[in-house]
Amino acid sequence: MSALPIRILGVDPGLRRTGWGVVTAEGTRLSFVAAGVIKPDEALPLAARLAALHAGLVAILEAHAPHEAAVEETFVNSNPHSTLKLGQARGVAMLVPALAGLAVAEYAPNLVKKTVVGAGHAEKRQIQAMIAVLLPKAQVSTADAADALAVAICHAQHRGAAARAARLKELA
Amino acid sequence: MSALPIRILGVDPGLRRTGWGVVTAEGTRLSFVAAGVIKPDEALPLAARLAALHAGLVAILEAHAPHEAAVEETFVNSNPHSTLKLGQARGVAMLVPALAGLAVAEYAPNLVKKTVVGAGHAEKRQIQAMIAVLLPKAQVSTADAADALAVAICHAQHRGAAARAARLKELA
Repeated sequence: MSALPIRILGVDPGLRRTGWGVVTAEGTRLSFVAAGVIKPDEALPLAARLAALHAGLVAILEAHAPHEAAVEETFVNSNPHSTLKLGQARGVAMLVPALAGLAVAEYAPNLVKKTVVGAGHAEKRQIQAMIAVLLPKAQVSTADAADALAVAICHAQHRGAAARAARLKELA
Repeated sequence: MSALPIRILGVDPGLRRTGWGVVTAEGTRLSFVAAGVIKPDEALPLAARLAALHAGLVAILEAHAPHEAAVEETFVNSNPHSTLKLGQARGVAMLVPALAGLAVAEYAPNLVKKTVVGAGHAEKRQIQAMIAVLLPKAQVSTADAADALAVAICHAQHRGAAARAARLKELA
């Protein structure tokens, strides 16, 4: 019996730019579906920027109907104001797929890099290069979209037997 | 001509506890409508906790139909992980009223305290005491709900002529 194909949404959240990518995982075979970046107008008030991020993610869920979602654990940096902004975007990025009924997994940046590149401290351009190898059909021009696809691939590798069983049961 | 009554939702966001309070402002006269605390089950995964916060805020908007919302600017503390958690809750707290079409204002904690207590470094129990004076009908047992009412009162004082003009136009 072959594994059922699963569509996975990966998200690399940020208030200025939220990268997203959808892949299909069929057993160990991965294929590219779509990817892009949501960039809310920075001139808008904060609440409106969060609403624009929400609208972008809702449109992606409607267009690609992923079964599961994975979000990168936000890089917590030394500037608390930047951390707060990232947190706000991340809250919306986790909320939208949860409201659509998707399980939302979280992965640390180091695990994402290690899974995709083989090293936990890979640079952004190494991730883009590996995305081109793993998903040859992906036309990814930005690092944010590549990072989001890396999160989706990380989830495909690590989602584990429990999630597969749940999905099988759901389809039965 | 008397000022039109405005219902204001104040929110003091947090991942463990989000305080909320609704007041009516009619000119300079304030009256209590409702207040409470949303406490998502801490045993749930993060995305489900954010979804519970979303559901709580949606229910409050439906029950009390506020015209405007105000959210306290999250205290940015020295622990980046706490700041990230607060940011995630705050993102949801700002998103929900924005999606309902409400203007969402933000106020720094010091301005909220100065407006309600008269001092920017008031303690939580001083805020609770002043809420009891300003809104005698409020039965507020928790500091979180009192803080949220304080945010709503702060907005009533500071929302300014522009917002009133917009509301008048909307009702015309």
